[in-house]
Amino acid sequence: MERLDLQACRARQARLMAAVPADLLILNNPHHILYLTGLYNSELRQAAWGLNSLLLDASSGTATLLVNEMLAHELNALAADAIQVTPWYAAAPAGPGAEQFDEAVTALRGRVEAIQPQRIAAELGWLPQGAVGGEAVLNLNPILKQMRRVKDADELRLIREAVRVNEAAHRGARAAVQVGATELEVYNAACAAAVSAFGGPVHLFGDFTCLSRPNPGSVPTPYALQPGDVMLCDIFPLVNGYRADFTATIAVDDGYSEAQDRVDVAIHEALRAGEAALRPGARGGDVYRAVRAALAQHGLAEHFPHHAGHGLGFDHPDTPYFVPLSEETLLAGEVVALEPGAYGPGFGARIEHNYLITEGGPERLSNHSTALL
Amino acid sequence: MERLDLQACRARQARLMAAVPADLLILNNPHHILYLTGLYNSELRQAAWGLNSLLLDASSGTATLLVNEMLAHELNALAADAIQVTPWYAAAPAGPGAEQFDEAVTALRGRVEAIQPQRIAAELGWLPQGAVGGEAVLNLNPILKQMRRVKDADELRLIREAVRVNEAAHRGARAAVQVGATELEVYNAACAAAVSAFGGPVHLFGDFTCLSRPNPGSVPTPYALQPGDVMLCDIFPLVNGYRADFTATIAVDDGYSEAQDRVDVAIHEALRAGEAALRPGARGGDVYRAVRAALAQHGLAEHFPHHAGHGLGFDHPDTPYFVPLSEETLLAGEVVALEPGAYGPGFGARIEHNYLITEGGPERLSNHSTALL
Repeated sequence: MERLDLQACRARQARLMAAVPADLLILNNPHHILYLTGLYNSELRQAAWGLNSLLLDASSGTATLLVNEMLAHELNALAADAIQVTPWYAAAPAGPGAEQFDEAVTALRGRVEAIQPQRIAAELGWLPQGAVGGEAVLNLNPILKQMRRVKDADELRLIREAVRVNEAAHRGARAAVQVGATELEVYNAACAAAVSAFGGPVHLFGDFTCLSRPNPGSVPTPYALQPGDVMLCDIFPLVNGYRADFTATIAVDDGYSEAQDRVDVAIHEALRAGEAALRPGARGGDVYRAVRAALAQHGLAEHFPHHAGHGLGFDHPDTPYFVPLSEETLLAGEVVALEPGAYGPGFGARIEHNYLITEGGPERLSNHSTALL
Repeated sequence: MERLDLQACRARQARLMAAVPADLLILNNPHHILYLTGLYNSELRQAAWGLNSLLLDASSGTATLLVNEMLAHELNALAADAIQVTPWYAAAPAGPGAEQFDEAVTALRGRVEAIQPQRIAAELGWLPQGAVGGEAVLNLNPILKQMRRVKDADELRLIREAVRVNEAAHRGARAAVQVGATELEVYNAACAAAVSAFGGPVHLFGDFTCLSRPNPGSVPTPYALQPGDVMLCDIFPLVNGYRADFTATIAVDDGYSEAQDRVDVAIHEALRAGEAALRPGARGGDVYRAVRAALAQHGLAEHFPHHAGHGLGFDHPDTPYFVPLSEETLLAGEVVALEPGAYGPGFGARIEHNYLITEGGPERLSNHSTALL
């Protein structure tokens, strides 16, 4: 299992502290705690085992983690100088009925009061009310959003691992797409293949739907594939906190419609047009327009209702956004997804690949098949 | 797909407003927003598509939802008088680089300022710093924690659905436990069976590990089961936001050890002892001690390192807690899990069932097999 490099976590802590005019930085977003310390509190656990905090004391350069009692037995080597476990359950001195969020906020407040910071910075939307006094808090989100764009080597390692797992999921899905198979069976095949490739449970998100039937949704159903059907498999596993996200539209046989065939040609052209736009300095909106223009050549601009892609990392969608209004310019070292698609009554297709932006252009990370058959 | 009843959601809103001396109640915990409006923002989505808010205006009795743009196309009928969508992405007037948490807090703050409340109540640990001014905020957590204990009819419907899905997962796991199968294959079989039974993706958590091998973990691995092995399957799916959580320990063949056989007898006796204690008015600590005493009869008290069970609902573990220090008394209408277990070198077992507490005693909800073979 790949993990973030603890020295790289320490370097990120130092970069963040250097970038922020505050003597205490408080982080509560689990993605950022992972990014800065290596502590993995899975997405699936997050809601069950609540608020954890990372305190970066800029005057001493030290990192302190406040973690939920339920995570205490899962703590591996971490980029932190001190770890304080907050009891609320079996060992709770707070007594019966203790509530993990109450205890977490109380512990954080106690810690902040002990430090007596002059200036606090925290993530807007994550720092809970009541954890600090009434003082103004500097918002870390814009700084972290920028800092996260260019991926470090240890992050790229995790993203490549997620890509590898997703390639297996795609092979599993493609093998399962056949006449009589249900959308759910295709989904199950993708999940099982991802789990086997990773060697452990994988949190697999995705759109699995037959695009040739009326009113397709995105969630897989018991619908059984018929001759001529095509199945969208947009698969995005979360592996150790990082994402891959790529797509194929797969036909059950060669009985698909002519409209389907034309869309398939068009989206492959649109993908190449998008790839040509993936250069450092290009605006997100430019990438969108390159993809849309290629689809327009085939009269499909009005059949393209969504973004042309997005950044990849912790969130979906992460920056940069490939939407019309996006003025952000691409940076070498960013990882992005391109995903042209076009949909109409009885046909539809989307394909998607992932890329590392380099000075020389995009390096494609994903190697699954995007062929209809 | 089962959903919460919108009239029941409205009744819960009214009960909550009546119980709290505040004119504005702000809720940000997705579980509570589901409970009070029917809005399901899945656990898996939560981290990606951030903060949503429910505002209950006690003076007018109205409910307003502030929801992320990314959820806008998924809004079904909800128990809300107004829904305000917060744009930050494709349609973002905030422009490129907009951050969903920043936009969510700004939208919430704007709404609160427009209401000019005298007294605000919110969930400690969930209301973000900066959403309200410096005024004191009443903590809703203790009230909601108490209110959530006795399940309403619509909640029981969802829990019974989760139980049904988990029974299928157990059948899938049991069929897969055989010599040569890997822990991961058993996990995959449980997942696939749950998905098929539900008719859609299921967020399946669980401990899947061979307890007869040295140093078992909890996460499934590529270890292939050998003759004489026993496999722990503690499976807890999240179905429409609600949980079931039950366990079996399954032998690959009849070659398991004598120690294993003794533990199996002991934990079944401990389960019955726990069931006898599941009466309204019993303390959580009493249930724990009843289970532990039964294990002590077999000399296994020191081999029982965890809780004897816990409440079921949104969280894991939910109240009541079956731990030594718990003084909370059981209520008719609560749903709980009992899970005796004992572990030693080369052997180990846990079984678990789910129950509805009634005046007449426990009604067992789960009907999976807990037999070794």
